[in-house]
Amino acid sequence: MLPLRALCRNGPSIARRLPGVQLARFSSSGSNVIVAVDDKTGVATMQLNKKPVNSLNLEMLTDICINLEKLEKTAKGIILTSAVPNIFSAGLDILEMYQPKPERLPEFWKMVQEMWIKLYGCQLPVIAAINGHSPAGGCLMSICADYRIMAQGNYTIGLNETKLGIVAPTWFKDTFVNTVGHRVAEGALQQGTLFSSEQALKVGLVDELVPMDQVQARAETQMKSWLKVPGTARATTKSMMRQETIDKLLKKRQEDIDMHVVFITSPPVQKMMGIYMENLQKKSAK
Amino acid sequence: MLPLRALCRNGPSIARRLPGVQLARFSSSGSNVIVAVDDKTGVATMQLNKKPVNSLNLEMLTDICINLEKLEKTAKGIILTSAVPNIFSAGLDILEMYQPKPERLPEFWKMVQEMWIKLYGCQLPVIAAINGHSPAGGCLMSICADYRIMAQGNYTIGLNETKLGIVAPTWFKDTFVNTVGHRVAEGALQQGTLFSSEQALKVGLVDELVPMDQVQARAETQMKSWLKVPGTARATTKSMMRQETIDKLLKKRQEDIDMHVVFITSPPVQKMMGIYMENLQKKSAK
Amino acid sequence: MLPLRALCRNGPSIARRLPGVQLARFSSSGSNVIVAVDDKTGVATMQLNKKPVNSLNLEMLTDICINLEKLEKTAKGIILTSAVPNIFSAGLDILEMYQPKPERLPEFWKMVQEMWIKLYGCQLPVIAAINGHSPAGGCLMSICADYRIMAQGNYTIGLNETKLGIVAPTWFKDTFVNTVGHRVAEGALQQGTLFSSEQALKVGLVDELVPMDQVQARAETQMKSWLKVPGTARATTKSMMRQETIDKLLKKRQEDIDMHVVFITSPPVQKMMGIYMENLQKKSAK
Repeated sequence: MLPLRALCRNGPSIARRLPGVQLARFSSSGSNVIVAVDDKTGVATMQLNKKPVNSLNLEMLTDICINLEKLEKTAKGIILTSAVPNIFSAGLDILEMYQPKPERLPEFWKMVQEMWIKLYGCQLPVIAAINGHSPAGGCLMSICADYRIMAQGNYTIGLNETKLGIVAPTWFKDTFVNTVGHRVAEGALQQGTLFSSEQALKVGLVDELVPMDQVQARAETQMKSWLKVPGTARATTKSMMRQETIDKLLKKRQEDIDMHVVFITSPPVQKMMGIYMENLQKKSAK
Repeated sequence: MLPLRALCRNGPSIARRLPGVQLARFSSSGSNVIVAVDDKTGVATMQLNKKPVNSLNLEMLTDICINLEKLEKTAKGIILTSAVPNIFSAGLDILEMYQPKPERLPEFWKMVQEMWIKLYGCQLPVIAAINGHSPAGGCLMSICADYRIMAQGNYTIGLNETKLGIVAPTWFKDTFVNTVGHRVAEGALQQGTLFSSEQALKVGLVDELVPMDQVQARAETQMKSWLKVPGTARATTKSMMRQETIDKLLKKRQEDIDMHVVFITSPPVQKMMGIYMENLQKKSAK
Repeated sequence: MLPLRALCRNGPSIARRLPGVQLARFSSSGSNVIVAVDDKTGVATMQLNKKPVNSLNLEMLTDICINLEKLEKTAKGIILTSAVPNIFSAGLDILEMYQPKPERLPEFWKMVQEMWIKLYGCQLPVIAAINGHSPAGGCLMSICADYRIMAQGNYTIGLNETKLGIVAPTWFKDTFVNTVGHRVAEGALQQGTLFSSEQALKVGLVDELVPMDQVQARAETQMKSWLKVPGTARATTKSMMRQETIDKLLKKRQEDIDMHVVFITSPPVQKMMGIYMENLQKKSAK
């Protein structure tokens, strides 16, 4: 690892706008998100660090958003990766959705949207260094990047929502279609396919595979190539490719929140989540 | 083949809404469409059975629509295949379009639309077991499925309308673009390409190839995997992927009928069909 | 080369509508564009012939437009290629954009649009015989064709605008996405990727590679296959695939001109072009 410096002096002012939000503590192993910036290159590495599986709850999503907002002003590129062994992120935290507090659920969903808007629309080049499993929301974060490097081995990636009896939001779908095309997206979203890393490479869900211990180094090398391109032209081009997809959500953001609150709190979905959690507890009890 | 039971007790009520329509007689070799449902799995196999080439005339399309409507209420998945050796379907019946009866042609076209709306929008998983040639409307039916298994060998598939001097409807085109992407669709639709099974696999027009005698068994195995996914979530996801394309036709359905009636009855198109039919008769006379 | 006849008797009338425009002189080695039509097949070969690099200035673009307009009425198909060794086209002429005359720049940009509208919307089959480097506007012309044959060897193709600090117009982007899909387009447009011919084949940016001395012959063979399809049906199908993309520009054509005039004449872009030209001069001085 190259020498790093802590980031985010303007953190508190942003956090104040998000009431009830835990501040990310940078370069601290106790934090949900560890951010470090290479002094020489300006490249930030943002490590997801919420054990055991980097589940995305309201606080975690807020930390990610705060850091993205800061880095967009201060860094030159972002490598998105995990500090938790063998897991990139397990996706949205089911505890936010199972028997949720009525006033918290819309806030949670708004922050899921916010994370997607900020990450997919990030003006910096973002490279996902996928160093472990990456289902559901973990896959979403990966496909928000500009380039995906995944660890070889028994790791999986995909939008597997249907397997749990739920449906990926339309904007997860749009991002996925933009990445793998309509036919592959349609089959995989219906079946809730978790692709092995080799399959993911084949369908274009990731761009390259390297051994686990080379994922970070390879991401840094790849980032160098992106940073050779004049930044304003590159960022404008990125907007040209993605803003239309982002605008689709922005135009119906509250509607999307309302719809997901109704869907998540509906008895059949709550029941399925209950069964799912029971199974999880049985597994962990073994 | 597994033990089967005849389907469709509520057939007559649907058929009554479609005046002049011949009822499908199920599990009968005399019928245009043979439907059988596996008792254990709930999987329906719908065999096209209109010799010599499963051409899609008004009656055949109506039979298909009636059966799809019934199966959507009673079965768990549909395997779409042919009972006629070496041909899946030759597509729309030219006899409906060459020197047509003025009052029948719009009814025919409306039923072509209806079949597409029902099959592409079918809430069940549909697997095409393509056990023979599949040009034009046969290709359309195939790409309406969720998954395509094709027989190895000298069989072809494609939207070859231009070769006959006609143009595929915009919704054939949309379905094709969704399947193989814009570039491949553009080249193939312009040239009226009939892909060999190997070429079809390469461009993603079919998902896998197996020897002819394994097509049905492979479709059944593949269906098992689709049925493991919770049905409501899978069906909602399917709608999310396809409804936009279907809505494009629904918004201008009558306009599409009127346009095709004018196009089909235009002297140059009628002339080309005449030449085509003459050639067919010469061939069959040999 | 097959026997050829000179084309374009109605040239002057078209040229009169384009004031200040130099007329293309056909089948003359002094011309910007050499057009020759095969007597037997009706296939036109249009050779870009503006040394040293077929840069697209106002006169060159006008010549191309005039010829396309004529050929659409008189020929059966167009093979688009270069008469300059090892270069297909270097793209838009930077001399039209660096310190431009205020009244000429909007005319230039309008003609860039016009060339795209005519070439992408050309009712004839167009085959690009890419016999050399094809960056930026050269790549755009290539992807406007229906089929691309590229010379093997150290030649490159791509929309590399960002490398020069500028941004490809939205309609360059749309044409590129239609060709290589969203994911590949996004990465390549952001990075300003120049693909080697082998890479271009792999991502579908070109359709086949042949040795340099076989490019023209292969284009002629390929054209034969396109001309077997009834012309009206093929042309209507081409419109069905492309008109929507073309209409997007037609709806905001003046806006697109105004925006590019502002963008091109902005101090940062002018500065970058100045540096670029200085580097070019240093290179040529060596």
